[in-house]
Amino acid sequence: MDLERSPLAEPFPEMPPIAGVTVRVARARYKDWDRTDLTFVELDDGTAIAGVFTKNVCCSSEVEIGRENVRQGRARAIVVNAGNSNAFTGYRGREAVEQVSEQVAAQLACPKSEVFVSSTGVIGVPLPKDRARAGVEAALNASPCGWREATDTIGTTDTFAKAAHAAAMLGETRVEICGIIKGSGMIAPDMATMLGYIFTDARIAPSLLQEMLDRANAQTFSCITVDGDTSTSDTVLLAATGRAENPMIETWDDAGADALYAAIADVCRRLAHLVVRDGEGAQKFIEIAVAGATSDESARRIGLAIANSPLVKTAIAGEDANWGRVVMAVGKAGEPADRDRLSIGFGGVWAARQGQPVADYDEGPVAEHLKGRDIRVDVELGMGDGRATVWTCDLTHGYIAINADYRS
Amino acid sequence: MDLERSPLAEPFPEMPPIAGVTVRVARARYKDWDRTDLTFVELDDGTAIAGVFTKNVCCSSEVEIGRENVRQGRARAIVVNAGNSNAFTGYRGREAVEQVSEQVAAQLACPKSEVFVSSTGVIGVPLPKDRARAGVEAALNASPCGWREATDTIGTTDTFAKAAHAAAMLGETRVEICGIIKGSGMIAPDMATMLGYIFTDARIAPSLLQEMLDRANAQTFSCITVDGDTSTSDTVLLAATGRAENPMIETWDDAGADALYAAIADVCRRLAHLVVRDGEGAQKFIEIAVAGATSDESARRIGLAIANSPLVKTAIAGEDANWGRVVMAVGKAGEPADRDRLSIGFGGVWAARQGQPVADYDEGPVAEHLKGRDIRVDVELGMGDGRATVWTCDLTHGYIAINADYRS
Repeated sequence: MDLERSPLAEPFPEMPPIAGVTVRVARARYKDWDRTDLTFVELDDGTAIAGVFTKNVCCSSEVEIGRENVRQGRARAIVVNAGNSNAFTGYRGREAVEQVSEQVAAQLACPKSEVFVSSTGVIGVPLPKDRARAGVEAALNASPCGWREATDTIGTTDTFAKAAHAAAMLGETRVEICGIIKGSGMIAPDMATMLGYIFTDARIAPSLLQEMLDRANAQTFSCITVDGDTSTSDTVLLAATGRAENPMIETWDDAGADALYAAIADVCRRLAHLVVRDGEGAQKFIEIAVAGATSDESARRIGLAIANSPLVKTAIAGEDANWGRVVMAVGKAGEPADRDRLSIGFGGVWAARQGQPVADYDEGPVAEHLKGRDIRVDVELGMGDGRATVWTCDLTHGYIAINADYRS
Repeated sequence: MDLERSPLAEPFPEMPPIAGVTVRVARARYKDWDRTDLTFVELDDGTAIAGVFTKNVCCSSEVEIGRENVRQGRARAIVVNAGNSNAFTGYRGREAVEQVSEQVAAQLACPKSEVFVSSTGVIGVPLPKDRARAGVEAALNASPCGWREATDTIGTTDTFAKAAHAAAMLGETRVEICGIIKGSGMIAPDMATMLGYIFTDARIAPSLLQEMLDRANAQTFSCITVDGDTSTSDTVLLAATGRAENPMIETWDDAGADALYAAIADVCRRLAHLVVRDGEGAQKFIEIAVAGATSDESARRIGLAIANSPLVKTAIAGEDANWGRVVMAVGKAGEPADRDRLSIGFGGVWAARQGQPVADYDEGPVAEHLKGRDIRVDVELGMGDGRATVWTCDLTHGYIAINADYRS
């Protein structure tokens, strides 16, 4: 099935190399296709690593092992397989991951816990060990490539290549942050896997790097949804090579910590938005800002209840300012809310205030706003100071076409 | 928008009258239409009432008042307005409900707390008091009608009339249970309101009647979902007139209690199934049986996570035995599960056992099963004795057409 490029796609950005990061790609032929499908990222000795992983309890072996390995805080390599997710493959799947780790560890003379493996694609079929072995071998011997090739190689059903770059000044030292990501929802028989890899040349302690990723994740990747379904393989890794040689950052109080975090969070947010912009069948990018909740977490949950409501998503697809559906979604979120204090707006115009339609509501500008590609929904709960912003896309015939009409 | 009759529709059943229940309908003209839209049910003095209501915290005034009134356990009348849900209308909406209650209470010389009002239809517009007053007046003067007329009158976007009947023997006394229901999802700008009314001539104490409805509800109406969205007006009322004159049933240990409960639960289950069968765009009725969970409630939550997964629903729409999507939905439910103990089947054939594809899996009978209208999904968690069955429909282009393409 050939998917059309998302109408919400963005061009591939300028992405500088990151000192201490070498990327190579190879053809493992995990599927019967003529494209690179194995990405091998070599990281300089001493690179700090942080990771966040799917909360789906039926996660893949890659996620189980990666979650374990990330605790020791160092990485020498990342291998990404595209075309086979190796999920629901029992002990044979686990063996395949171990084989890849051992092969790379032997080559780099590092502990195998410093090799991180991700896989995305067909489920229920163990990653073929022979193809993985030959693919890794080919990658080890390949010439280094650029970010664009790597992004294309980790992709599966993506309709455009997704990457983001930011820089930060840590005192007098400039550091770079480059991130690539894949994910667009799920297509039979693949999983909706979101795999993201972010690299920086900043020097930072692994424990603080993990705190930064956790904090950024909470406001970015954890605030997006396409259809509310969660892949069993979702992974975001953040690697810091230290090659910029800034003074070591160990705590939030150290000079440069805030600037580095801001740039990392910026890259995470832009990558997260790109995934939504490639949501299956997406025609509109929707930002939902919730304020006045009893806490930030409550605001996030309410935002996601709205973002996951098929009735809200179809209303926006139909360019219908249906604030009643937003009220319904707020009410079903299971969070504190009061119908009679609730206000709902579209594109900066309040349609309902304090649980009632606005008396002199002018639908003109709202109707115009809803015809656009970028939609803004405001929700004011009037309960407290909690706030959150979440992002999603609309639910269209395209989603059904991709997920129901297409057969594996 | 004219909706086609659901391909999953069932014929209207034979429904006997219930002694002590008199039904009348009238034209209140809540919308610019030529149909009856106000249903007035008069109940004999001493009728016991029980009710369950939406958990949506942004509920309508009708729900707030009904939830309060049901505590005193007696009802003399039920009024159902179709065409205007009176939701999100603030104090003016509440005043309209009070007016209807007072008008009926004055006529029947009963406390207004014994009059129950429901409304379904357009949101954000207060129920017009003048039309409500004239409609109630017309209903009071109308000739009694049958169940079919009442069912048609409470309906809004339903594509077929939904009712169920059962009888029970309480010792030597035969009692009848008749239920009618409306609901099919939601259509802009209406809410997905499910309104159900069940009547019996059995004699039973209100407190036990409420326990029976709570118990039946937990296994029927609380186990169905069309799109996971919850109306702000959902209501099921159960009225028992006592005219069968069976020996009073006051506790679960009293003779006839079990038989009566079984018949009530049977009617609830059949009504619940009919709502799913009229799910927006539904082409297939899906039963999901979850066993081996750590508790029944955990099984129900897992079942609903599967039933609400757009990826599972679209896979079944596409007649694709995509067990990986079912595993994914189990994993995201937030309930105890273990990928490597999980088994998934379709139509009685296991596709995956203990987290891996079945070695000699024969897709033939499964593919045949998925071509049918009634789909069965089995999930065995291998964790404990908890079990639940939930029901849903598939997610099709029809759902998008109804909810996005149609504009209010």
